[in-house]
Amino acid sequence: MKSFSDYSALVEKSLRDLRLPSGALSTLYEPIAYALSAGGKRLRPTLCVMAADAFGAKEEEAYRPAAGLEMFHNFTLLHDDVMDNSDVRRGRQSVHAKWDVNTAILSGDTMLTLATQLVSEVPDDKLRKVLDTFNDMAIRVYEGQRLDMDFENSDNVTIDDYIRMIMDKTGALLGGSAMIGAIIGGASDKDASKMYEYGMMLGVAFQIQDDWLDVFGDSTTFGKPIGGDINNNKKSFLMLTGLAMETAEAKALRDAISLPAGDTKVKVMTRLYEKLGISDKCRAAIASYSSKAITALKGTSLDDEAREPFRKLVEKLTGRKK
Amino acid sequence: MKSFSDYSALVEKSLRDLRLPSGALSTLYEPIAYALSAGGKRLRPTLCVMAADAFGAKEEEAYRPAAGLEMFHNFTLLHDDVMDNSDVRRGRQSVHAKWDVNTAILSGDTMLTLATQLVSEVPDDKLRKVLDTFNDMAIRVYEGQRLDMDFENSDNVTIDDYIRMIMDKTGALLGGSAMIGAIIGGASDKDASKMYEYGMMLGVAFQIQDDWLDVFGDSTTFGKPIGGDINNNKKSFLMLTGLAMETAEAKALRDAISLPAGDTKVKVMTRLYEKLGISDKCRAAIASYSSKAITALKGTSLDDEAREPFRKLVEKLTGRKK
Repeated sequence: MKSFSDYSALVEKSLRDLRLPSGALSTLYEPIAYALSAGGKRLRPTLCVMAADAFGAKEEEAYRPAAGLEMFHNFTLLHDDVMDNSDVRRGRQSVHAKWDVNTAILSGDTMLTLATQLVSEVPDDKLRKVLDTFNDMAIRVYEGQRLDMDFENSDNVTIDDYIRMIMDKTGALLGGSAMIGAIIGGASDKDASKMYEYGMMLGVAFQIQDDWLDVFGDSTTFGKPIGGDINNNKKSFLMLTGLAMETAEAKALRDAISLPAGDTKVKVMTRLYEKLGISDKCRAAIASYSSKAITALKGTSLDDEAREPFRKLVEKLTGRKK
Repeated sequence: MKSFSDYSALVEKSLRDLRLPSGALSTLYEPIAYALSAGGKRLRPTLCVMAADAFGAKEEEAYRPAAGLEMFHNFTLLHDDVMDNSDVRRGRQSVHAKWDVNTAILSGDTMLTLATQLVSEVPDDKLRKVLDTFNDMAIRVYEGQRLDMDFENSDNVTIDDYIRMIMDKTGALLGGSAMIGAIIGGASDKDASKMYEYGMMLGVAFQIQDDWLDVFGDSTTFGKPIGGDINNNKKSFLMLTGLAMETAEAKALRDAISLPAGDTKVKVMTRLYEKLGISDKCRAAIASYSSKAITALKGTSLDDEAREPFRKLVEKLTGRKK
């Protein structure tokens, strides 16, 4: 039985084997190769290959579509980094910082079409379903990003709004990756949509964990500075949970938001989060969405053994330090 | 026998009937509706519907894919306007000027996926060919835009380089639109690729005409200020043709490039273009590419009557004032 790491190593190799057009147009394709070479967990393509394997695809059948999902994910990172004005990605310069904004826009556009091409490398009888799943997923991701941007200028974002946003922005891509793998493996429609649900719930748990790590993680293992969300007044799961409370510390939290960005602000708000028991609330939410992922998994026709790597993946991602 | 204007009116109606998701996410979809409502010639979708009809598709069969091609075209305009920092499009504010750059990026991304969805609304047995044509076309358009950007910083762009660039940036989209229509109509592979060539050559003629209108057109009918290319030192067909010459006026042209942007520069360079006989050279190039388009058209199995609207379209576009 292969583990996530085994699958992920296979995906990494197939990504290295991707041949991008090059030569005269290095200005278009070099930034793409750069973005793809930055590593990362390869969560989305690995999930796709795992699902394809679980439902009986031949080993290599899902590699190119899986690479397409990683390409799609990286396309969103190029454009998100422009929109968020983030100069660092995975410990290196983001594409617009290393080249320029126009390069990030245009190479990003190219990546979306390359992603569609790769995802379409499935047998004809599966093309329609795979393509529809991919496009619907993409639309949800854009809607999630739009909601995320709109939340910045809104004073009454609720935790429910936030969950909807991360279901779109993060969940849909994990759900879509698992579902596309399942379709490639020949899963029934019911199984394919249960795998979507599994990925979706895993994605929500994953994102709340990410918000938690941004405050309570360790910057060396996490790969980015701690407190970034606090300094950007980001409406994270932690902040929205705190704002929904009515105690004196919750009032102090509301006041702390107007502090200028810096180490003091991070310290003050982290202490308030601790006093408000926000960490426990994060753990509870992560456990709840993890359990929803497992329920969806159990709703498939996969047997216990085939389910095992997916169950372990939930544990791995929600217990991670990076 | 329907004319381009008849087909174009049908396309306009089907674009109005497009239902975009709306409501909560007006921040994502309103800019899309705005961009699509700006009008324009609807050249790409009309060419698609014309080709579908010529090869025997049922009337409505090509409408949605054709709308996808217009959606794709408008997606490139949203992003190009950001990259070129152009605040005006078809006499109105461009999307990034009316909203902001992030909106133009994200609504543009959404349009690319919506375009892929619309183009995919073809029978299953045509999906693979239509999708591959669409994606290959898209890649060429990005490569063309990249070349165009790279040319800005290059001092040795030749007319051949320029032709390659507009074949990618403009020609591929007209070629792809005609070819997708032909595929929907059930054309043979040979006919489909001849229609691609027709659209490609028409696109090159069209673009040279556009460059010519930017200098010698009338701002009221052309829809944008005359001399924009001159003031931006754009390596247009006119400028590259002038730079390739060796006379005293050609030397004067080289000197005039360093004049500051403004009415004087436009006047000086326009006079030099006249003295150098650039207008005649434009007309000759347009005639040559028009004739290549007609040759490709004659290479199809379409009879004279079916070819007629395509022949007339060449005349219309290369004789246009806007």
